[in-house]
Formats: sequence, structure tokens, C-alpha cells
Amino acid sequence: MAIIVQKFGGTSVADAEKIQRAARRAKKRADQGYQVVMVTSARGKMTDHLIADALELNPDPCRREMDQLLSTGEQQTVALMAMALHSMGQPAISMTGFQAGIRTDAVPAKARITNIEREKIQAQLDDGKIVVVAGFQGIDEYENITTLGRGGSDTSAVALAAALEAEQCEIYTDVDGVYTTDPRKFKRALKIDQISYDEMLEMASLGAGVMHGRAIEFGKKYGVTIHVRSSSKEIEGTLITHEVPKMEGILVSGATIQKDLAKITIIEIENHPGIAARIFANLAKARVSVNDIIQTEISEDIANLSFTVGKSDLADAMKCIKKIKSDVNYKDMFVREDIAEVSIVGIGMRTHYGVADKMFNALAQKQVNIDSITTSEIRISCIIDKDQGDMALETLCTVFELDKEPEDREM
Amino acid sequence: MAIIVQKFGGTSVADAEKIQRAARRAKKRADQGYQVVMVTSARGKMTDHLIADALELNPDPCRREMDQLLSTGEQQTVALMAMALHSMGQPAISMTGFQAGIRTDAVPAKARITNIEREKIQAQLDDGKIVVVAGFQGIDEYENITTLGRGGSDTSAVALAAALEAEQCEIYTDVDGVYTTDPRKFKRALKIDQISYDEMLEMASLGAGVMHGRAIEFGKKYGVTIHVRSSSKEIEGTLITHEVPKMEGILVSGATIQKDLAKITIIEIENHPGIAARIFANLAKARVSVNDIIQTEISEDIANLSFTVGKSDLADAMKCIKKIKSDVNYKDMFVREDIAEVSIVGIGMRTHYGVADKMFNALAQKQVNIDSITTSEIRISCIIDKDQGDMALETLCTVFELDKEPEDREM
Repeated sequence: MAIIVQKFGGTSVADAEKIQRAARRAKKRADQGYQVVMVTSARGKMTDHLIADALELNPDPCRREMDQLLSTGEQQTVALMAMALHSMGQPAISMTGFQAGIRTDAVPAKARITNIEREKIQAQLDDGKIVVVAGFQGIDEYENITTLGRGGSDTSAVALAAALEAEQCEIYTDVDGVYTTDPRKFKRALKIDQISYDEMLEMASLGAGVMHGRAIEFGKKYGVTIHVRSSSKEIEGTLITHEVPKMEGILVSGATIQKDLAKITIIEIENHPGIAARIFANLAKARVSVNDIIQTEISEDIANLSFTVGKSDLADAMKCIKKIKSDVNYKDMFVREDIAEVSIVGIGMRTHYGVADKMFNALAQKQVNIDSITTSEIRISCIIDKDQGDMALETLCTVFELDKEPEDREM
Repeated sequence: MAIIVQKFGGTSVADAEKIQRAARRAKKRADQGYQVVMVTSARGKMTDHLIADALELNPDPCRREMDQLLSTGEQQTVALMAMALHSMGQPAISMTGFQAGIRTDAVPAKARITNIEREKIQAQLDDGKIVVVAGFQGIDEYENITTLGRGGSDTSAVALAAALEAEQCEIYTDVDGVYTTDPRKFKRALKIDQISYDEMLEMASLGAGVMHGRAIEFGKKYGVTIHVRSSSKEIEGTLITHEVPKMEGILVSGATIQKDLAKITIIEIENHPGIAARIFANLAKARVSVNDIIQTEISEDIANLSFTVGKSDLADAMKCIKKIKSDVNYKDMFVREDIAEVSIVGIGMRTHYGVADKMFNALAQKQVNIDSITTSEIRISCIIDKDQGDMALETLCTVFELDKEPEDREM
């Protein structure tokens, strides 16, 4: 029998009514003849409340105990979900991470799944039950409860789908699917029917926010078909899959904008092997997450080095760079906070020329000043003035026809 | 190293301040050189809230899922308690029932502990940590989380004390200890320094309410010294122990009153073997908990049969008795709701005559009408008119000198 994994996030199980709606969704699949595994997060603001309770007792709670505490949020949801299913006459059983055999490494707060003992869930499925599994959590080899960090329930769902060889992993969310760009910024944005893991990974890292990158990586690794769809509307969402031939023809699948960035430029740094590594090692130690890096040679020995960080990391990053001034021996440091980064993403770029050209021309025609450019194989990003950001995004969406279905685009 | 087990109930961990107070209590013992195991309940009204959440989704939730849900309450407390201990510089680790190796039978909602894998806790104790164990819960052989039913955290604590061969099991509560009678009813009631398991069991079953009977039975079976004491005051409470010689000299250790009872009398029932068994089997099936039973022979073949039940069970009991009328063939049924039961308890009764006599005389002098009498080896109970209840209790307390320390009593 084919298996479907359905993941419901915190907002989709926030109250009794929403729990019942999710339960109906699952029962419908079961009635269609599928074996159904539900993966749920903690209800609504539960995790925030528990964190507040912890901080009241300890401003720096140890991660092992935080995991022990926070994992109760999901455990409550799965028990309640099973009860809701029972009240609809649907056999069901809830499972915590350890009951479901979700083994992780021993890194609290950001554990990685190492193995799933699929027999435990399979036995219950074969017994005719919907199995409701607590997302976001697992158990390490010492029987400590662990949590998977941000986006953890997505990862749980995709990992379970992989382990159970599910037909599909449905991610229920409060949007209809993945859009060509943020519909709040570009009203004519279209829902994408199908997108590749790699494109979705680029979109996720650019803040498209529908799914966490780790879950997509997991899906890519194990070939899990992920279906991002609305928890309130009964419509198809977006399929995230391996590349299929028709994707090749689409130059640009989506566009994004990020505004919460700052750019730090280190002026006249010695251009020796190991200097950049030392800088980024220090930033990593300070827990600063660095986005793009741009280095420009000034002479054979001297370079300028720029990188972008989230604004929340800016203070830490500046402190770190100042601290290592004597060590890495640079002349000066500049910070720009008035920037935005617009990006276009599409696997078609690999085989088609002229995409970058078209992007820069479109921005130039609108008098958008490009501060710097970074690219990957399937992405081009430009750092521009923040107050031109929304206009630039709209320009790119129009030029690359992101308001049209792929088959209706001229290029 | 000597081990102390400390149990803190829901009201003793209801908020951050109380959690910190409990943590200080435990740390103090650790500083004295003890290895300390804490057992905690769910915070304040947590369990009630979770039950309400469940009933909103399912008016008759399955017990396995209720256990899965309710066990999160204790899990939250233990994690928070460990954090509180950490913030005081005290090494500590929290454990759920399964992490602590508390194995139970597979009876959800009222599981019984079958085994405790003491090495798991002992290893952490030997590592210098206070171990904070979730009370009220365990795990069955199928990895289902189970709960132990009413008074379950007391039972967890005493069972852990037994498994770890602890020097003492401290039960922290909102009273100072066990009193000769309820101090709200008899102001001169005295705290008892030491009481036997058997007496405490009688007191508990008579509604003295400080500890649950099952925990006391466990303590008796494994010889655990139980210390019932105040969570807010730093004073000695009451030790519950095996009988020691000096207890023999005390005629009456305590007196109790129960007012939430009703008495059902079945008139002219056939006095054949098996008839009473059939009645009480039917009551048990209807989940009616029967207290005392009194049977009076009227002729060789006919008897009257009375029994008392809690008022909350009265409707079910009456329905049950009416249903089996044709089956057991009785003439009529009477119900008295205007009753109270006053009891005196003491192991000295075993070896001293005249206690019953003294009790009945005292009540007679106060014109108290005795409806019926039941006794055990160490208890005498009288059912009387409810409106004479408090006066009768005070009379018995005075006559048996329950306002004096045992060594100061005349008899």
C-alpha cells in the first residue's frame, strides 16, 4: 500500500478546530486507501511559552534540558491529534520521536537524524492506523531526547517519507505553495507547479521561507517528492522534485529579495593564503552566519574583502572584525546597512546564455545602481540600494515573465 | 554514599519561585553529602488544562493517548527543575519515566511499576548530579508511556527510594506532616512524629489525604522510611515506618471523619453463598468503589446487606442495584445520605482491650446515635448522623487525648 506523509506546522494545529481540520485531511487520505503518517509541530505559541518559562529560571539553560522541555510541545500535539482522529472513528496512534525510532546524533538543539527504525511505524500502519509522529525531535544513543533545530518538523517529515519510501511528503502550510516571488511584493506572482530541489534550496537560502533548507537537502538526497500545499484550501500546491526535462526550458523559476542584510567591507587586507580563512573562522566562532563573500584584488598583495550578514548578526560581526584587526592587518572597515539583495533562480541558467546580461540591462534601464554581484550555477544575486529594492524586484519579475505560466513565456 | 529521594507535588512546583525553593531544598541535601533524587509532579493546574484540551477534541479519549498527553506535564517540570539547579551551580539532569528505566505493566492510566533499572539513575548520581525524575509515569514493554493514576508521583518516589535503597523518601507537601486528626476540624490536633505503615494506610483510606495508599503499601513492602514534611517550612514532619515497640503503647494514633459517604441497605436478601459476591462483582463492573460492608442475618435464609460508597458513586451504585433486583431477589433498597463516619486508628488496639468500649461510651454520653459499626484489627469506625459528626470527632479526640503527645497521655 502506498504511504503518504503529511506534515502540519504549528499554525496548522494551533487550536482544536485546526487540529480537527488536519485530522480530516489525514482521514481523507486514509479513506482513499493510503497508509498515512502525520508529522506535527507544537501548537501555536507553545514553544515560545516554554522558552519563556525556562528563561525565568535560567538565563542560559543547557541545551539538553531545553530539548527535554521543548519536545513536550510536539508530544502534546500528537496525542491530541490521535484523540481527534479517534473521535472521527479513525484508528490512530501517536508516537514521540523515540517511540517512532527516530535516532539522531548527540548534538542537542540541532541534532541530525542518523537512522529511523521504520518497522515501528510500519507495524502500526499495517494494523490500519494513522500514525501521528512528533516532529522536530528524536533520541540519541544515550536516550537523551534531542531536537532538530529550526525547520525540524519539515526535516522529520521528509526523513520519515524517505525511510518509509512514501509516495509523497505533503507539507501543509499557511500559503498555497511556492510562488515565483513573494506575492505581497509582486501581486502578479504565480504559484509554481513544480520546482527542483536545487532551485528550492536557493530560494530557501534567500529567505523564501516556505521550507527549511535542511529538509529540502534531505528530500534531494533520498529523492522524496515534497508537496508544499495549503492547510486551509483543498488545492494542489507546489511539487519539489528532481529535475525533469521540462524544467530545463525555464530560464528563471523565481525571484527573491532580502532586506535584512548588512554588508561589511574590509579595506586593503593582505592577499595571502589563509587570511580570509582566518577571518571567517573567527566569524564562525562568534556564531555569525555569513551569506555572500566578494573579494577584489587591488594589487598582487592587497585586496578588499566584502561579505553580507543578517542585520541581527551585524554587531557581533563588527566586534569580531575589530578584534582581529592587529592579527589580519587591514586598513579600514566599512559597513553598509542600506542595501537589499535581489536574486533570480533557475536551473535553465546552466544551459542558457544571456540571463545575467538581461538582468543587468533591466536594472540599468531603471537606473538601479548595482553595488556587487554574486552568482551560483543557478542563481544571480545583486546587492543594490535598499530604497530601489521593491522596484528592482518588480522589474525582474516583469522582464523574466514571472507572472506567466512557463509555457506562455516568450523566452 | 547515602541516597535521599525527595518528592515535590504539583503545588510545590507551581511557579518559578516554588521550583527554585524546591531546588534549594535538594541542593542543601546535596551539600550535606547526600546523593539526591528529586521526583516531581506536573506544575499546578497543568494536568487539568491538558485534560480540558483533550475533552475538547474527544469526550472519551483513549487512555493510552491521555497518558501520552499528561506525561508531558511532569516532563516539563523536571527539565525546568534541572535548569533551576544549574542556575545555582548544582550539576543536575532530568529524566522522564522511560529515561529513568521505570518499567510498568501495560495498563494505561493506572499502571503499576514492575521494575526500575536502578543503574541509569545511579550512574548519574555517581557522576555528582542531582537526578530529577518525572513522577507519575513509566513505560511499558511496548514502549508506551504509562501513568500510575492518583497519587502516582508518591508511588514513583517510594518505588525509586526502594530501588535505590535510599535512606529516606521525603514527601514534600503543603501540610507539616500527618496530624492526629484534621486540624481544621479539631484545633488542638497534634502532628504525629512517627506512625506505622498500617496505621497510615487506614488513615489514608479514611480520607486523611496526605499520601495515597498505594505509595504507603509500596513503602511497607520494601521498608522505605517515608518522611511527610512541609515544602515551605524547615521543620521535621512525620515519619512513616515499620512498627517500633513504642508504638504499641499508643492506643489511638489518630481519628478521622468522612462526610461524603452514602449508605445503601438492601433489605431481605437471600442469604445464600455467592449472592453477596454477585452484588459486589456487579458494583465493581459499574466502577463503584465500595467502602465498608455490613451484613445482618434476619433468619437462616434472609439477611440485610449494607455498604457505604462515596457520594459521587451513589447514582451509579443505585442504578446497579436496581438492575440486578430480579437477579438477586431482594425486597427493598434504602439509602441514607445524611451520614458521617468517624473512625479511630491505632496499632495499640491489637493488644489492648477496652478501646471500642471507651469509644461507644464517649459517643453515648454525647447522645450520638450509632447507625452501624465496622472494625479492622487497628481501626474502629462508626456511622452516625451527619449533623453530629464534628461534635463526635471532637469528643473522640478529647477522650483519646489526641491533643497530647503520646508520652503525656494518661492511658
